[in-house]
Amino acid sequence: MASEEIPERPKADAPAEDGPAEPSKKAQKKAEKEAAKAALKARKQAERNEAEAKKIAEDAATDVSKENYGDLPMVGSEPHEASGHTRIPLLEVSQHVDKDAVVFRCVVETARSQSAKLAFLNLRQGLESIQAVVAASDTLSKQMVKFAASVPPQSMVLVHGLVKKPFEPINSATIKDFEIHIQKLYTVSRAEIPLPMQVEDAERALPGEGDVPGQEEEPKAEDGRPLVTLNTRLNNRVIDLRAKINHAIFRIKGGVVQLFQEYLSQQGFTLIHTPKLLGAATEGGSNVFEVKYFDKSGFLAQSPQLYKQMLVAARFERVMEVGPVFRAENSNTARHLTEFTGLDLEMAFEEDYHEVMDVLEGLMLFIFKGLRERYARETELVRNTYNVEEFKLPEAGKVPRIPFVEGIRLLREATGEELSEYEDLSTPMEKLLGKLVLEKYNTDFYVLDQFPLSVRPFYTMPSPHDPKLSNSYDFFMRGQEICSGAQRIHNADFLTQRMRAMDPPVDPESPGMRDYVAAFRYGCPPHGGGGFGLERIVSFWLGLPNIRLSSLFPRDPGRILP
Amino acid sequence: MASEEIPERPKADAPAEDGPAEPSKKAQKKAEKEAAKAALKARKQAERNEAEAKKIAEDAATDVSKENYGDLPMVGSEPHEASGHTRIPLLEVSQHVDKDAVVFRCVVETARSQSAKLAFLNLRQGLESIQAVVAASDTLSKQMVKFAASVPPQSMVLVHGLVKKPFEPINSATIKDFEIHIQKLYTVSRAEIPLPMQVEDAERALPGEGDVPGQEEEPKAEDGRPLVTLNTRLNNRVIDLRAKINHAIFRIKGGVVQLFQEYLSQQGFTLIHTPKLLGAATEGGSNVFEVKYFDKSGFLAQSPQLYKQMLVAARFERVMEVGPVFRAENSNTARHLTEFTGLDLEMAFEEDYHEVMDVLEGLMLFIFKGLRERYARETELVRNTYNVEEFKLPEAGKVPRIPFVEGIRLLREATGEELSEYEDLSTPMEKLLGKLVLEKYNTDFYVLDQFPLSVRPFYTMPSPHDPKLSNSYDFFMRGQEICSGAQRIHNADFLTQRMRAMDPPVDPESPGMRDYVAAFRYGCPPHGGGGFGLERIVSFWLGLPNIRLSSLFPRDPGRILP
Repeated sequence: MASEEIPERPKADAPAEDGPAEPSKKAQKKAEKEAAKAALKARKQAERNEAEAKKIAEDAATDVSKENYGDLPMVGSEPHEASGHTRIPLLEVSQHVDKDAVVFRCVVETARSQSAKLAFLNLRQGLESIQAVVAASDTLSKQMVKFAASVPPQSMVLVHGLVKKPFEPINSATIKDFEIHIQKLYTVSRAEIPLPMQVEDAERALPGEGDVPGQEEEPKAEDGRPLVTLNTRLNNRVIDLRAKINHAIFRIKGGVVQLFQEYLSQQGFTLIHTPKLLGAATEGGSNVFEVKYFDKSGFLAQSPQLYKQMLVAARFERVMEVGPVFRAENSNTARHLTEFTGLDLEMAFEEDYHEVMDVLEGLMLFIFKGLRERYARETELVRNTYNVEEFKLPEAGKVPRIPFVEGIRLLREATGEELSEYEDLSTPMEKLLGKLVLEKYNTDFYVLDQFPLSVRPFYTMPSPHDPKLSNSYDFFMRGQEICSGAQRIHNADFLTQRMRAMDPPVDPESPGMRDYVAAFRYGCPPHGGGGFGLERIVSFWLGLPNIRLSSLFPRDPGRILP
Repeated sequence: MASEEIPERPKADAPAEDGPAEPSKKAQKKAEKEAAKAALKARKQAERNEAEAKKIAEDAATDVSKENYGDLPMVGSEPHEASGHTRIPLLEVSQHVDKDAVVFRCVVETARSQSAKLAFLNLRQGLESIQAVVAASDTLSKQMVKFAASVPPQSMVLVHGLVKKPFEPINSATIKDFEIHIQKLYTVSRAEIPLPMQVEDAERALPGEGDVPGQEEEPKAEDGRPLVTLNTRLNNRVIDLRAKINHAIFRIKGGVVQLFQEYLSQQGFTLIHTPKLLGAATEGGSNVFEVKYFDKSGFLAQSPQLYKQMLVAARFERVMEVGPVFRAENSNTARHLTEFTGLDLEMAFEEDYHEVMDVLEGLMLFIFKGLRERYARETELVRNTYNVEEFKLPEAGKVPRIPFVEGIRLLREATGEELSEYEDLSTPMEKLLGKLVLEKYNTDFYVLDQFPLSVRPFYTMPSPHDPKLSNSYDFFMRGQEICSGAQRIHNADFLTQRMRAMDPPVDPESPGMRDYVAAFRYGCPPHGGGGFGLERIVSFWLGLPNIRLSSLFPRDPGRILP
């Protein structure tokens, strides 16, 4: 290095081709003098550099740990030999106590130096965290302790260390009975400082329903730490999602889908994928997103309703779908999303649409049971943060199936209000009914049956008992709707008649309806089904205050990024 | 009935209030005469009606079967008592031979009368069909035989009958060793006549790749039956989908998804749902569908790429997604859809991106094995129709992992053409390579590794071995790509540099990129993944000639309905 910095001595006696005229003797002398001066200066600098390099080299020579810490090159960017090390999950450390060193990759949550000789790290992997100690010794340099203490939080590191029992349980980590005595520590990927928000702030409950657009932001201070608002969290969602509470929420969400498919597969349902790009707005044109489809107009599916019914008509007796659902509703509430995940099913039945409700109830009980068995820890983590009570399931697996008119009667009794049996329930009334049902039946999960016909879509089968009611139902969790379903009309003529009787009427000959109506002309079994909102199941199971918390990257009228 | 048809005798002597002036005696006489005449006529008609009714009643009285056939009322539209009958799946008939009557709902495929006393029906349920006999006897009327023979094909019926062994195996049905002796037969839902196309025509192979838009239609006649074109099939998709071959295709499709999730769940992947509505076009603006998002512009996701990577950065170490993918590509080929189902995964790895390939290969081998075990019958049904050879799997589960440059060498050898090692393969070359690999390695499934950097997206990690190559790979089935994947750049500065070096450059500060790039500033593990096209896996597994055949309601530039 140093030698390269010495400027090359000008070759004064060489002819300067194409150069200016030969300089005067005086000028030549001056140039020589200056060159000598520059050379001297450079030589001195070189000596200084050499001394410095020597010192660094000596320091390095005395750093017994110099190979054992530092920044790794970007993985994959350099040819490398396989290390031969098996990297373990943190959950397995108990198997390695006082044995050979373990190797693992993890995140540094915090790093602090106790002294020049001692540093502590909090390391995390998934929902687990463990304490690590870096202690200077004959085989571990102070330089390495300094390095460890200076690793920025949220950096990804590679650790080699021994698993030891600590003197006393470590309360700041989830793994309390073991700690790591670090032998080697490398950063795999350094985090920049400062972070736009802290992960630990995302671990705390959102105040109220959070700041939904249009509501005033009121971040309240509590125990001295800043309260990060919902908007701040969602604007920095990648950091926000690192919180354990968010890992728990989305593990549960994925789990609900798996349980949904598991149960329905056993029940003979075929998993389908219906189009989300439609050629016509089918279920009311106002809440539908329009798409530029080459030189035509397209629309985003508001539900797979018509398609899943067409598949029943196509002899797929039982179908299920998991897919996005798009609603162009300009509602800025804690309960609405413009894009959510629909869990849909549709099935032929034999004699009575309550056969469909049997399947739907069995499905939900299976999901709840599965969540309790497989996601107990995740559920507890979230409910503890939000101080939410256990979700009460019906005794003996008998889901209360309450006629809508009976629900109205309960509400009339409780409120003294004159509620109509032929109108829909308001959200506050739904929630109140949830409380009344909980008191009476001791369950947070129940069903309302036989809804008024006038509040249901055109394809709903009217009730044989009262022409103003219908063979339709809603499912509720903690007083909030998670599923709407019904027996559908499977006769084309009757369907056409009902479409024309709607206000405004639906045109059975329109491009979006023609094929749907035709599907019932060629022999179709009686059928029914339902559609669940996945984010609602997750939110109400956990008692989350805002539906956005159960969407990875929520979409509402004001938010379409990130 | 008849009595109601006698017109009431005019009350001639009653005063006509507000009527015309009182009539003359002459007019009165005339009216009386006319009334008497009308009464006589009516009386005679009544006598005729009575005689007719008597005959019908006598006929009915002699019809010993009158309660045992006919059209059922629309299920759910009338109050009903549960029948108490268990309805069985056709597959279980063997358990009921010569025992009590079985009851089942099914579709009439064909109905024909042999004589006034004998009719045969072909009944279907799912992939199964069985022959049924309706034979007149002391307890079964000729009227019922006539009714049975006249049930329109594709009607849904309810059957009560005895399971018997036929004299000889019935080759026209899938259940050959049993037949049903019908005792009761009711239509649940009648099909209209004629159908726009026949289900049995949909059972046959599509000629060539089918009539894709822009290509000339060439329906070729064969064995006398009309060949229905792909467009006719897709225009009448509900009837088309009733074909067993289509049930087989879509059972397999649902099965691939289940297997995908099953394997990856075991491997610790979390099932995620990323947004399909995006605030910015991220991967090249030209092939993206634009959405009117309230007063803003939105776009449909062309892949979950950026989001699944952000989730790895959010500490979800392993994520998978099954969801729709939208491509506004104006390509009218047998290989393109504008909407298809993406099977995506992304995972952190430790030392080498080949760890990701290990998972991807293990996944596909698991899926293939699962299809062989669980969907052998469906696979056989489809491959027999299309005369497709068995899909060859690599021996001992060792998937050939061929460097791209080696693939080029094989093609050069075979063709003598001067192919570049730094350019992408054309589709014909890909297919040819598939043949060469099949010859050399005896497998229809293989991987190309280390693709040229210039043909891959900006987020691809360059190769440490040759800066013009990259740590990326494609997976192939029968010489056609099913998956594209790579190690991704997990360092924000390097990513930014690569984005700016693209032609045209990608702006790391643009709204669609800002949050994505930022995700790699806060400590992100090395990671990689891939995206599979579900319809491609299904098509190539089965050897289907057109990708539309593995989409329930395919979308292409010319088709967005039904």
